[in-house]
Amino acid sequence: MTSETRAGLSEAVFEELLQRARAGAAERERTRELPTELVRALAAAGFGTAHVPAGVGGEGVPLETLFERLVRLARADCNVAHVFRGHLAFVEKQYFEPDAAVREEWWRRVLAGDLVGNAVSEASATSDLSTVLRETPDGLRLDGRKFYTTGSIYADWIDTSASFGDVGVQVLVPTRAPGVRVVDDWKGFGQRLTGSGTTTFTDVPVEREHVRTIDPDDDAQTYMLGFFQLVLLAVVAGIGHAALDDTVDFVRGRRRIFGYAGEALPREHHLVQAEVGALSSAASAARAIVLTAARTLDAALGAHLAGAPGAAQGLREAQLEVYRAQQVVLPLVVDATARLFEVGGASAVDAERGLDRHWRNARTIATHNPALHRRRAIGDFELNGTATRRYLPAG
Amino acid sequence: MTSETRAGLSEAVFEELLQRARAGAAERERTRELPTELVRALAAAGFGTAHVPAGVGGEGVPLETLFERLVRLARADCNVAHVFRGHLAFVEKQYFEPDAAVREEWWRRVLAGDLVGNAVSEASATSDLSTVLRETPDGLRLDGRKFYTTGSIYADWIDTSASFGDVGVQVLVPTRAPGVRVVDDWKGFGQRLTGSGTTTFTDVPVEREHVRTIDPDDDAQTYMLGFFQLVLLAVVAGIGHAALDDTVDFVRGRRRIFGYAGEALPREHHLVQAEVGALSSAASAARAIVLTAARTLDAALGAHLAGAPGAAQGLREAQLEVYRAQQVVLPLVVDATARLFEVGGASAVDAERGLDRHWRNARTIATHNPALHRRRAIGDFELNGTATRRYLPAG
Amino acid sequence: MTSETRAGLSEAVFEELLQRARAGAAERERTRELPTELVRALAAAGFGTAHVPAGVGGEGVPLETLFERLVRLARADCNVAHVFRGHLAFVEKQYFEPDAAVREEWWRRVLAGDLVGNAVSEASATSDLSTVLRETPDGLRLDGRKFYTTGSIYADWIDTSASFGDVGVQVLVPTRAPGVRVVDDWKGFGQRLTGSGTTTFTDVPVEREHVRTIDPDDDAQTYMLGFFQLVLLAVVAGIGHAALDDTVDFVRGRRRIFGYAGEALPREHHLVQAEVGALSSAASAARAIVLTAARTLDAALGAHLAGAPGAAQGLREAQLEVYRAQQVVLPLVVDATARLFEVGGASAVDAERGLDRHWRNARTIATHNPALHRRRAIGDFELNGTATRRYLPAG
Amino acid sequence: MTSETRAGLSEAVFEELLQRARAGAAERERTRELPTELVRALAAAGFGTAHVPAGVGGEGVPLETLFERLVRLARADCNVAHVFRGHLAFVEKQYFEPDAAVREEWWRRVLAGDLVGNAVSEASATSDLSTVLRETPDGLRLDGRKFYTTGSIYADWIDTSASFGDVGVQVLVPTRAPGVRVVDDWKGFGQRLTGSGTTTFTDVPVEREHVRTIDPDDDAQTYMLGFFQLVLLAVVAGIGHAALDDTVDFVRGRRRIFGYAGEALPREHHLVQAEVGALSSAASAARAIVLTAARTLDAALGAHLAGAPGAAQGLREAQLEVYRAQQVVLPLVVDATARLFEVGGASAVDAERGLDRHWRNARTIATHNPALHRRRAIGDFELNGTATRRYLPAG
Repeated sequence: MTSETRAGLSEAVFEELLQRARAGAAERERTRELPTELVRALAAAGFGTAHVPAGVGGEGVPLETLFERLVRLARADCNVAHVFRGHLAFVEKQYFEPDAAVREEWWRRVLAGDLVGNAVSEASATSDLSTVLRETPDGLRLDGRKFYTTGSIYADWIDTSASFGDVGVQVLVPTRAPGVRVVDDWKGFGQRLTGSGTTTFTDVPVEREHVRTIDPDDDAQTYMLGFFQLVLLAVVAGIGHAALDDTVDFVRGRRRIFGYAGEALPREHHLVQAEVGALSSAASAARAIVLTAARTLDAALGAHLAGAPGAAQGLREAQLEVYRAQQVVLPLVVDATARLFEVGGASAVDAERGLDRHWRNARTIATHNPALHRRRAIGDFELNGTATRRYLPAG
Repeated sequence: MTSETRAGLSEAVFEELLQRARAGAAERERTRELPTELVRALAAAGFGTAHVPAGVGGEGVPLETLFERLVRLARADCNVAHVFRGHLAFVEKQYFEPDAAVREEWWRRVLAGDLVGNAVSEASATSDLSTVLRETPDGLRLDGRKFYTTGSIYADWIDTSASFGDVGVQVLVPTRAPGVRVVDDWKGFGQRLTGSGTTTFTDVPVEREHVRTIDPDDDAQTYMLGFFQLVLLAVVAGIGHAALDDTVDFVRGRRRIFGYAGEALPREHHLVQAEVGALSSAASAARAIVLTAARTLDAALGAHLAGAPGAAQGLREAQLEVYRAQQVVLPLVVDATARLFEVGGASAVDAERGLDRHWRNARTIATHNPALHRRRAIGDFELNGTATRRYLPAG
Repeated sequence: MTSETRAGLSEAVFEELLQRARAGAAERERTRELPTELVRALAAAGFGTAHVPAGVGGEGVPLETLFERLVRLARADCNVAHVFRGHLAFVEKQYFEPDAAVREEWWRRVLAGDLVGNAVSEASATSDLSTVLRETPDGLRLDGRKFYTTGSIYADWIDTSASFGDVGVQVLVPTRAPGVRVVDDWKGFGQRLTGSGTTTFTDVPVEREHVRTIDPDDDAQTYMLGFFQLVLLAVVAGIGHAALDDTVDFVRGRRRIFGYAGEALPREHHLVQAEVGALSSAASAARAIVLTAARTLDAALGAHLAGAPGAAQGLREAQLEVYRAQQVVLPLVVDATARLFEVGGASAVDAERGLDRHWRNARTIATHNPALHRRRAIGDFELNGTATRRYLPAG
Repeated sequence: MTSETRAGLSEAVFEELLQRARAGAAERERTRELPTELVRALAAAGFGTAHVPAGVGGEGVPLETLFERLVRLARADCNVAHVFRGHLAFVEKQYFEPDAAVREEWWRRVLAGDLVGNAVSEASATSDLSTVLRETPDGLRLDGRKFYTTGSIYADWIDTSASFGDVGVQVLVPTRAPGVRVVDDWKGFGQRLTGSGTTTFTDVPVEREHVRTIDPDDDAQTYMLGFFQLVLLAVVAGIGHAALDDTVDFVRGRRRIFGYAGEALPREHHLVQAEVGALSSAASAARAIVLTAARTLDAALGAHLAGAPGAAQGLREAQLEVYRAQQVVLPLVVDATARLFEVGGASAVDAERGLDRHWRNARTIATHNPALHRRRAIGDFELNGTATRRYLPAG
């Protein structure tokens, strides 16, 4: 049946897309070539809609499957995987949309191929939003500027936040609407192709049905903050695997141990093998932690949707579990991407080979979502039962 | 139905047993009081038979459930959890027993409450076994000495290995058979109550049906080496949680920051909270890695039992995944048990409080199964496709 | 000349004392046998007076020499080295005594062989002292209880602190004065023989000349806090070397790699060698950091005594440099003492062999002087120029 | 007196040069602008001749002073400090030149302002040299190609190695000699301005007095391998301090904690301060370890020059001490340069700000001189007394 074919991402198609992604990843980063086609092909193949329920035509896979694919995609090209962050989150957020018609309409749109990007962060020193939605005689209009708008440059819709009178609202804006300008001015030393640039809204007309009130204390926020974070951790876990892949390639191609003519090939040397073993183990652990957290999120969502008793508490615990995962996944992978150079060989630092890009990419993600304050928040919970604070998701 | 009641370990009963375990754990360690009754009560409640198939009267839970319980038991008392290592492995090994009658007979015995201990390690510098099984006019007789015979002191059966002519065999010996002597001479600075002492066999009569040939290259070995290791990692993950529990208790009870009169309570101090957050995250990650590996083992076992194509390869990959898990779980928890002292407070080093026992216990397990050589073996696999070597399980 | 003989600690005598210290160190710890004779012999040989100026009959060595010896003594027996902490500090503090007669009188006493112990910490949750000095018709009397009074059990004099009316004072009390009770009730899991027990003063008569006002803002405090801390770091550096020594002994005596019969001897195995190399490097680095800090302290003291411009600032910077040293020396050695077990071999965990004592000893010292709050204080200085806070020295 | 003025590098001049170095360092790296003038100015001011003996007109400072300046220079611009590696080594090597006239002639040349660069590494998989010196009717001629020829692009002389019949020789070649081509084709992701490119020799005429036999077993090699390594470690220690400087600047300029509007300024936040404190401590420890090793080298050189008994052993121990230093300094600084991002703030990853350059620079140096094999060699020495192997110095 057509709908089944459309809904599911076949392993063969995905594997082929992964190969395409892997092939040019390092080169694209170096030349700053946006992987627009690849992102579109993945969306078309159903990568971004795997968690849409089967009942509305989606693939309806468990969250673990979605995150397992995300790790694989990031292993092939961590920029491309990162680009889907806002999109996957938008799809996910619909589970908390009370109006079934609205919810299903959005799911239908993404199933039809629409891509959604993210525009939330602002530059101000306060948490007040300077992006403003206002009533005009001609309808709603949006003005403001957002930074780190990951994925927007590839997207059909921009999922943004604004002040609307006294309240905060979520607004969906078509990328092609008049007054929308997305600039790829992202200058980070890593994740260069995530399109995490600036999005400017100048008198942009907004449909009333594309505006929703944000309730920062509701279950949706609790869940989504965990989800947003876990997408990043999945990307980082993928980077860990990519670092392993490149290190293995590098060592296999080497013919001598530094300063030791006539000795064993590097790939046969115990100390080199032990370093590679450490790298392999770090990547594997990062993936295991991410997948376990995905299952925890999934179970919490299921309980919430089923209206189970204790579901709200379950959502909070799931969020906390993702925050705990962050504390271990980030240093594990960041350290591994630095440590891979211990296998030796001066040519490892060749910028064209790009072995440093794994560290730069992992370090960039880790910096946008610093673990420090959440570490304290986890401890505050353990010691005093304090709920973890709400953190805005970022780039 | 009675059989259902018998087969399953109810959450309520387990929770009660965990509370009993937790209550006296530190005190028992200090006074070297063997938790014999507790071990027996857990066995009687079905803790050790959870993975026996439902078809023969077992609980038939997924391996993940078994390991999740093991982590919880180790959190309450890591010695008690460790004691079950040989027993759980013996139950598991029956899945590879080709003779259904033999297999089911052993499962029935453990379902009836029999406990199995382990006696494999020898003192010699070679891998030849000095423990010998021989034919005599009066039947088979066993002689030898084994070290680190974890759990034997609590057991009804001892699962041991011996030379029998030219071949290596596995022998099951009733603990109460004449000539069997189990001495708790274990002198390790950790895991003091695991009964990991010496077992001596002097002219012990052995039933022919209790002897089986060991084939070191078969699938069973591949699987069991992973399983044995994962039991230890589950115990270590539990120690990580126990360290968190004790640290939280310790910090909550403190009234001042060292050297800082009049400041916030330690539990309200950001730096202290961050340390506790790190500890909480390490414990959570260790558990996640263990549970993911348990699922991998379970899937590999399932494919093997179903005769699926590629099943042998799946078993090897599952073993490798456990070995990778070891590389991360051990340092994560060993470091956490040392780092907990950073919360400060001179009374933390009070030997009666026993906060050091977590490090001693984790470090002892980690030392018996050193990660160093397996780290190299993992790298050798990644670089050269070399199968991971076989390692004898230990104490 | 006699005075020369008396003043200087000859290398031959010191080496012989080190051998005595090393010989029984592990055994004494296990049996809790106080090394009273050894402490006395070291004092008699001039170990504790090396920094007394040559002008008053001391050896007058640079501080670096004193700390280099301290590292060596701690390598032999870290308890004995720790015992001298209060004594060395007392000797040092005289450099800030304005009254030359008083200063030289004390130096003469220690040159004559008197030992000084420390009794500063109290149990209360505030920094107010509950130990009280008061005027009575019969003269001054002291009452109170101090904890972690390191070295007092071996000492002739106890250097303690008390409230005296509105002010804080330092009081020197002869150990044998009526009403002084020193109990070795120290229950720490490490540094068991430092005599860090409880000292109780009950109506103890105090000589007026043995009382001095404490000015927490003066240069002496700045210097002494650095000095006190550096003594501990020197002991920890010595523990790092002792851990290396014992690991080398252990590996040399081993005949097989765990689970690898027939392979190279452990001491010839590259992975084992790399672990030992890491341990050796950690110990060496700890020592280098300590000696560099000792030179910085010495230069700051010299400038202070010479009345050089900027001397007060130099003292503050020297203190800060010691605090920085603490941040690296403690984790370097604590990690090394845990990591030594990676060389493998189940017998490494044998409590009688005592390889765990290095971790227990280092961890105990590190816990009494937690690095966490000073880490923040260093950062506060770097970011905001805030002077590091004063910390009370401890056990 | 003029000669005194010439010989010594005054603090005022050096400080001014440091400020010039610091001012443009990040910018030069980004635009790949070689700091030729700065290098020349430092040479002219006497930076490179500080260890030339006073007796021949040099400054004759202790090695510690030289290395202390090197750390400061690297703190200002780690590329410029690195450029001097070959030069400083060449100056140092003259201490082992038996012919006083030759030795002093070279020292005079460098005192007159000549700069020496390095060209030792080759691309082949063996340690045989493919660079060849041969006799021709027109005198000696040199042909070959060297890689990672640090500093040569700035130099007047190139210190290179070649085969000459059966023996290995050291050859000094004027950079401006016909047939010498120095290309800055260095493509490393760090230390971009060290001029570590390729030097090609095509039929280059060589003066017979500029050729010396290399004896790999002599004391000079032992000493020089330690010296070469320690120069790199000093550069890395400087990078640690530069990372601290930039982090402090970054934090001071920030106005909010990520996701925490309205809270304390980042620079007042305890967790941020603790991270900065850790960075400050790492930099300080790296410097202390380097300076201590410099003193050890200096003492060993002094004993050698004095013909003291045991001097050869002292040189070997000094080399070993540098190798130990490498094991701690490299990870300490590499980790610190990665960890600095934990202070938070998305703008930290801005490539124009260049906070990643510290990691890239430190990681590049650490990769050219991998610590892994030396770690094993240190352990082999500790366990078996094996002399540390000789390692060729690199880039």
